[in-house]
Amino acid sequence: MTPGTGAPPSRTGFPFGGGSDLRALHTEELTDLAARIRSFLVERVCRTGGHLGPNLGVVELTIALHRVFDSPRDVLLFDTGHQAYVHKILTGRADGFDALRQRGGLAGYPSRVESDHDVIENSHASTALSYADGIAKALRHRGRRDRAVVAVVGDGALTGGLAWEALNNIATAPYRNLTIVLNDNGRSYDPTVGGLGEHLARLRGDGRVAPKAPAPSPARPALRATAAHAPATVFEAMGLAYRGPVDGHDIGAMEVELRAAAAAERPTVVHCVTVKGRGYGPAESDEADCLHGVGVLDPSTGRPAKAAAPTWTSVFGTEIAAIGAERPEVVCLTAAMLRQVGLDTFARRFPERVFDVGIAEQHAVCSAAGLATGGLHPVVCVYSTFLGRAVDQLLMDVALHSLPVTFVLDRAGITGPDGPSHHGMWDTALLSVVPNLRLAAPRDAARLRGLLREAIAMDEGPTAVRFPKSAVGSDIDALTRMDGLDVLHRSRRLRLDVLLVAAGVMAGPCLDAARELEAQGIGVTVVDPRWIIPINPTLAHMAARHRLAVSVEDCTRTGSMGSMFVQVCADAGITTRLRVLGLPRDFIEHGSRAELLIEHGLTGTRIANEARRALSATVEHGRPPGGQDKESEGDRP
Amino acid sequence: MTPGTGAPPSRTGFPFGGGSDLRALHTEELTDLAARIRSFLVERVCRTGGHLGPNLGVVELTIALHRVFDSPRDVLLFDTGHQAYVHKILTGRADGFDALRQRGGLAGYPSRVESDHDVIENSHASTALSYADGIAKALRHRGRRDRAVVAVVGDGALTGGLAWEALNNIATAPYRNLTIVLNDNGRSYDPTVGGLGEHLARLRGDGRVAPKAPAPSPARPALRATAAHAPATVFEAMGLAYRGPVDGHDIGAMEVELRAAAAAERPTVVHCVTVKGRGYGPAESDEADCLHGVGVLDPSTGRPAKAAAPTWTSVFGTEIAAIGAERPEVVCLTAAMLRQVGLDTFARRFPERVFDVGIAEQHAVCSAAGLATGGLHPVVCVYSTFLGRAVDQLLMDVALHSLPVTFVLDRAGITGPDGPSHHGMWDTALLSVVPNLRLAAPRDAARLRGLLREAIAMDEGPTAVRFPKSAVGSDIDALTRMDGLDVLHRSRRLRLDVLLVAAGVMAGPCLDAARELEAQGIGVTVVDPRWIIPINPTLAHMAARHRLAVSVEDCTRTGSMGSMFVQVCADAGITTRLRVLGLPRDFIEHGSRAELLIEHGLTGTRIANEARRALSATVEHGRPPGGQDKESEGDRP
Repeated sequence: MTPGTGAPPSRTGFPFGGGSDLRALHTEELTDLAARIRSFLVERVCRTGGHLGPNLGVVELTIALHRVFDSPRDVLLFDTGHQAYVHKILTGRADGFDALRQRGGLAGYPSRVESDHDVIENSHASTALSYADGIAKALRHRGRRDRAVVAVVGDGALTGGLAWEALNNIATAPYRNLTIVLNDNGRSYDPTVGGLGEHLARLRGDGRVAPKAPAPSPARPALRATAAHAPATVFEAMGLAYRGPVDGHDIGAMEVELRAAAAAERPTVVHCVTVKGRGYGPAESDEADCLHGVGVLDPSTGRPAKAAAPTWTSVFGTEIAAIGAERPEVVCLTAAMLRQVGLDTFARRFPERVFDVGIAEQHAVCSAAGLATGGLHPVVCVYSTFLGRAVDQLLMDVALHSLPVTFVLDRAGITGPDGPSHHGMWDTALLSVVPNLRLAAPRDAARLRGLLREAIAMDEGPTAVRFPKSAVGSDIDALTRMDGLDVLHRSRRLRLDVLLVAAGVMAGPCLDAARELEAQGIGVTVVDPRWIIPINPTLAHMAARHRLAVSVEDCTRTGSMGSMFVQVCADAGITTRLRVLGLPRDFIEHGSRAELLIEHGLTGTRIANEARRALSATVEHGRPPGGQDKESEGDRP
Repeated sequence: MTPGTGAPPSRTGFPFGGGSDLRALHTEELTDLAARIRSFLVERVCRTGGHLGPNLGVVELTIALHRVFDSPRDVLLFDTGHQAYVHKILTGRADGFDALRQRGGLAGYPSRVESDHDVIENSHASTALSYADGIAKALRHRGRRDRAVVAVVGDGALTGGLAWEALNNIATAPYRNLTIVLNDNGRSYDPTVGGLGEHLARLRGDGRVAPKAPAPSPARPALRATAAHAPATVFEAMGLAYRGPVDGHDIGAMEVELRAAAAAERPTVVHCVTVKGRGYGPAESDEADCLHGVGVLDPSTGRPAKAAAPTWTSVFGTEIAAIGAERPEVVCLTAAMLRQVGLDTFARRFPERVFDVGIAEQHAVCSAAGLATGGLHPVVCVYSTFLGRAVDQLLMDVALHSLPVTFVLDRAGITGPDGPSHHGMWDTALLSVVPNLRLAAPRDAARLRGLLREAIAMDEGPTAVRFPKSAVGSDIDALTRMDGLDVLHRSRRLRLDVLLVAAGVMAGPCLDAARELEAQGIGVTVVDPRWIIPINPTLAHMAARHRLAVSVEDCTRTGSMGSMFVQVCADAGITTRLRVLGLPRDFIEHGSRAELLIEHGLTGTRIANEARRALSATVEHGRPPGGQDKESEGDRP
């Protein structure tokens, strides 16, 4: 193997700067390369955590892509970007895997700063076909018909409505340079659901798979019985050309099909059958999700290197199963993430009452509206970042009809290593506009259990509960409950200078800040509103009794609880000085949750500093403080 | 014909309270009934305005539905509700058409307050299949397998991704009581685009249409040539049963197919071919959209009763065509509403540079991201209310990649007779969270032209322009431009009491309010920020120089420009008293735009009253005003 021309030789022994190096290799060298990439992936991803199963499945597919197409002249799009690790290795970034998904290190998804070979940084599913349609149109408009556009799409991503909208448009588009590589491994996290999943299974099982195709998975034989049903593919019915199925682990066979697709007269689907986790026993045999996304693992076993602490997700999972036993009208929905959102226990106990709709958040929410119309209480469990996919359904289907649907928003706030498209920092702002919606932010496990029950007990209009991706800490008891607010702390023997309004898990940092401020003689009240939407008007009255009120939350400041707090104070004519702490109206890079919270000022010390600065600014301006200076009895229960 | 049992005989001569009355009728009586309904629709809708073409197309289909199914025990769902007029007539609401879509009168869409026969009040497209899936699941869970669920879906609505997500789920669902009535008239407003549209055209043209099928429309013959291509339907490929195509104007044939579908062992699609505008010459021959949604018409001609004044849409349409001539990189996208959003002139001049993606807002926005990635400047033209469909794409595809895409949001703010699902009152709040996004609100035609050009000239990150559904008024010149803000008015010889911050078209009412306040000796500054996102920090400094600052806009207060204004004042430590005027966090019923603006306090007199009340509240509380009391030179240019 000769060193590549595109990038300098690396420590990792993958010298490739692109396809030209690959095209010089013989069959045996390619087989050797695939094996080395696979070993590299297992070793490195077990060390750092990341997406393992999906990338083990696309080693040969990605090699074939780079041999047939000429990236970056030809545009390679990955849906989602979690299957782009091999692409990163083949475009000169193997060395970066030492710091994969770490602050300042290699991103877990494509990144345009890293490489000209990367295009889509968003790793929400089902987008690549739309990008492909747009880019192909733009190339045509600009007379660049020599450049090909290739979208690599998982079968799970095709269950998303955006992919259908794109297929519908691509099918009749007048360009010849668009290839759709359907990477069919039969699953997203879980096996791909619905008519499409069964259709693809029929295609895989109807004798058209190339000889080297992987053995059918346990789910396949039953589906084969219906193979004779549909002679044409759904793609051909729509007007697209279709090639395959082809063994996605046979580089030679893949190249034949890709070259044919590239030369076709119309947009062509190449149906590749792959095995998620291919070549790594613990991944292939993992019943959960083929080691889809992992933390640090022992590579010899594929098991986590350290025992998992209880998480917000696991607390939720236990509680929703208990609620399910008490309330037969409660049903749960997930968008292809049953275990990831903690529904596995519920699903084992009530298999008839849990619905995996595929990667299809719109349908999850709109069919939940239907379930509620039919008299049930649906609980829609999604990662916070994916709520943006169903804003219209939440607003116009659930809220407009005042239907009792509960949303459980896991991974709310800063999530960490997945980066800007996965931080759950927009949910509060998006939910704040929804009429009659109530959003709870529990500060600890006890509050999660209690607020979840309160939410599900409400029988009119949408409710939501948001919590972060992390281990759940110790419970924080309240001093007292007042008008629905939990007072967590109130300084004794000090005048009330500062009110800290802590949303959910910000209670901990706010209590830390209170200790720091008190040590400097500044009196502090810390309150947890529990329900952050709608804003509790008592907060305005509490603010009036302090010199400064500071709201603290881990979501974007714009449209936040804090912004509603400021507004309710304005409505009430309260002129106490106010500060809204939260995340900027900006995208936040990858890193650990702890690092990013520090960076954005959401720690006890930073909150205390901000409060001190605001208090002194009041004095500097020489204006009288808006609130009262001495402790009032009025805000005691 | 005997009087019905379900509802008292009405003035209009449609005595039906449901299906039992219909089932007693003979064939000739049904034909007569259909003719009478059609005459009634033409006469009444021409008088009030409303959805004409779609309802003329479903007269026989709706009669057949009510004869075969037993509403409300069986659940009839219309996608969208604009094709539910005949259903309203057949369920005892014909008398209400006198006040169709008027304040307090019959809603233009299904309404649960009006009737137990109505279910879905949201009339955004592509939702009914998801409702059907949810309701069928709920009925099954509750042991009510005797109740059927029927979704009537237009072919245009099937291009929406939500419909695909639902089909994918329904295809493998274990219930037998779900029927999908595909009302295929070949179009939404415009002919249905893409692979699906061509697929349905092939099905219509492949000899399976019943003998009484309507003659092919001009668009069909060309598509017939490819009829032999796909032997199976896309529905069957997905695993659904399929029946048809059947002539949707043949009540007997429809009944046969519907009964067969109702008895089928799995969810079944009944493909009905109808003609939009059927039976009314001016609608059938209308090239624009078969008189889809109309104002008051002369029924003898189908032409508007009075000449149309220039609208915001027409001003935009002329300007975007002019910009297109100057900038070859500008391309436009529409989601099945080419003429409705004013793109017809642009499309005539640059047919290769306008893309109708179907009812598919997600794809419109995500493929725009692709177009921008490819070096073009896409302009996505949608009604404000439909922006909720593409929040995730706007945030994660356009903004995350800092792509230059311009959104033109027509029908922003209170729209009027279409009611709660169509008021464009959420756009500002949804856009406010999007990093780097800039939103302009023009106050008049000159500003629309100018701000549109400013938006399209920005070459990084998303821009948006919002304007209402109404005739455009006279231009309002500024006194002066200051840090990007237009100062529209400043009282002379009076101290500066009140700052009015007017978003876009609220400039007029704010100037009215200023006149009223000045007449009472209260000094007023009126400023139009032009760009309302991000908030201009100069506004906070201006607020500091007044005793009271009031923001005024026609969108939901939560997450509004006003909420950002209040926050920027808090950030700057400014304690001037503030008021945020806008629409409540609630759904707003149908009525005229003028009526609803009055009702929600967005008129000159109501704004002036609110300002006076806030000023006197300041005095009553005995607190010093936060701002300075005398005119400052600082805010002069």
